[in-house]
Order: sequence, then C-alpha cells, then structure tokens
Amino acid sequence: MAAPELEQLIGLLSKLPAFGPRSARRAVLSLLKQKESKFVPLVAAMQTVLDKVDACPVCGNMDTSKPCSVCQDEKRDKTLVCVVQDVADLWALERAGVFKGVYHVLGGVLSALDGIGPDELTINELIQKAALGTVKEVVLALPATVEGQTTVHYLSDKLSEFNVNVSTLSRGVPVGGELDYLDDGTLQLAFKARRNV
Amino acid sequence: MAAPELEQLIGLLSKLPAFGPRSARRAVLSLLKQKESKFVPLVAAMQTVLDKVDACPVCGNMDTSKPCSVCQDEKRDKTLVCVVQDVADLWALERAGVFKGVYHVLGGVLSALDGIGPDELTINELIQKAALGTVKEVVLALPATVEGQTTVHYLSDKLSEFNVNVSTLSRGVPVGGELDYLDDGTLQLAFKARRNV
Repeated sequence: MAAPELEQLIGLLSKLPAFGPRSARRAVLSLLKQKESKFVPLVAAMQTVLDKVDACPVCGNMDTSKPCSVCQDEKRDKTLVCVVQDVADLWALERAGVFKGVYHVLGGVLSALDGIGPDELTINELIQKAALGTVKEVVLALPATVEGQTTVHYLSDKLSEFNVNVSTLSRGVPVGGELDYLDDGTLQLAFKARRNV
Repeated sequence: MAAPELEQLIGLLSKLPAFGPRSARRAVLSLLKQKESKFVPLVAAMQTVLDKVDACPVCGNMDTSKPCSVCQDEKRDKTLVCVVQDVADLWALERAGVFKGVYHVLGGVLSALDGIGPDELTINELIQKAALGTVKEVVLALPATVEGQTTVHYLSDKLSEFNVNVSTLSRGVPVGGELDYLDDGTLQLAFKARRNV
C-alpha cells in the first residue's frame, strides 16, 4: 500500500468530479514525477485561489474581488439580469461574449427528485432585485432540461408581479449541428419554431 | 472571463491526466463551493505529499520514508526482485498482496516510437543489482503489450549473464473473463497454453 499521506490525497482527489480512485492515483504519480515543474505551481495556485477567490455577494460569481469584476464593471447594463444555474454557465456566457448585462447565479434548478425547492436556490434574492424596480429585463438562461424548464416557469410566474420583461434563450438546431445526430425533441421543436428566411 | 488566478489554476489542473479544461473548471468550482470541507483539506494534503513524499533511491517507489517502507521491511525477501513499469503497477501488486519480495521501478518500457531506449530507463541499476549476486529471481511484471514484451526479451537477455532466474507473469483468460469479450490474441494464447485439469 502507498503511504497514508498519499492515500489521503488520493481519497480527497477521487471525490472531485471527473476523478475516480484510479485516475486520482495516476494524477498524483504524474505530479510527483514532475515536482518542480508541475506539483509546486499547482499547490501554489490552489493556495492562491483558496485565499483570494470567493462568491460575489451580489450575483454569486466566483472572483477575487467583492463585488465581482462583472458587477463592478461600469460599462455593464445593470438593468439587464441574466439568471444562470451555476458559475460554470456564467463563465460560458462570458467566454461567448454575447451578454453585456449582469448575472444572477441561482445555485441549481428546482428538482423534486433531488429535493431542491425554491428555498435551496437564490430565488428570494432574485425577487428582491426585481422588486427594486431598476431591472428592466430578466433573461432566464437555464438548461433545456425538464428541471430547467420547470424553473423557468416558476420564475417567470414569480416575476410577473413586477414590471420586468422576462425572456429565455431560443431553442433549436445548434450551430454546426448535423440533423441526424440530433434528438427527436430538438428536431420537433426546431420544426415547429421554423421561421421564414 | 474568470479571474487570472482561477484561469491559472484551471490551466494547471487541465494538464493532469483525466482532466481537460471543462472538467478542471468543474472541479475548481466544486472545490470553491465547499471550501472548508473539501478545498482546505485538499490543499493541506497536497502540501504534505509535496513536502514528504519522494522516490525511493533503492526501488523507485514513491513513499514518505527513504528507502521506502517495502525496501525497509525486514520480512520482505530481498533475493526476489519484481520489475514493474511504474509506481502505479507496484501499488497494484501491493494491493493484490501476492508478492513478498522487493521491487524495481523501470520508469517505462522500451519504445522506439516514443524514443525510449535503455538509457531512459533504470536498466543499468537493475543490472547492478543482479551483479551483486544476492538476487536469486527477477520477475518481469511488465505490460502484455508489444513494447512491454520487447522489454521483457531485452531484460532477460541482459540478465542471462548473471546467475539469476528470470520469470514473467502468466498470460491467459483473466478471472471473471467472458470468452466472447476477449480479443483473439488472448484466446489464441490461452488455447495454446492450455493445461490439464
């Protein structure tokens, strides 16, 4: 058996998404083989992120500054709020560079099966933002799953009390999508929502 | 975009085996969500392993003690040396608990394609061990690949000069192996090497 210190590290790593015990072991050995070039910088980078990065109190984004750089950006349109499931989705939208408003990280989607109700998410915080009257549009950029769409309906219902425009992402054939690789649901939806060219 | 500190950590993580940029991002976010319960212990465990674990100067195993706990173990038969490709294979044999001798980590196998010749591996160190005259048997526990078997032939040739018995692992149907899931090579080999019950 490996030393207890090694076993402990492998155990902790194997709880991360994408890792199992075998790949955690391989990762640790690969780090040990290149201590100076890989292991030392990785531990230093982890310590820095651990010390400096925290959730933004306004939107829930993970950043080194509080509020986060998106919320602090003067050029961002604060009247436009995009609701996302988690920080990974926020980063994906930022990489795409299409949205110039601010975000609201929900922390998940409603799911009766997983026991996630409105109180487990930041829905109250979203309602409070809408109640301030400064928000003109809320874009619900939630996943196109049953749970995601249930959440869209729940939120648009809640937000209908306020004077805000509620929108959601369009659905259809993704860019570069071959039709025969797409699922039936997407094809039906794309057909129904077809538009004149 | 995420903060540069986050991007740097994601970049370093995504170079690990089993990780890509997407899974590295997910892992970092999952750590940030559970800072106290996951992130702090992981960084501490990494720092401990970085400080304490090193390659054993005798066999190449990764351990907190030098020589490693296997080489220091009085109950281990030092006349039996098992040659493995890397530390992961050593650990696999230790988990199986079948071998009571000591190890020799080769650091890879001979591969003309990857430019790995005898000098890239710890073959000279193995020959030196054999030349001491205290080793009775060398078990070549190398992978059943073309490169692995080339290395087996090379090593058994080199070791034939000395008074040591050279052996290799048996080949055939693995335990629990369904015949129709096995490759043709293994089936042919298992048939040729069939034995009376």
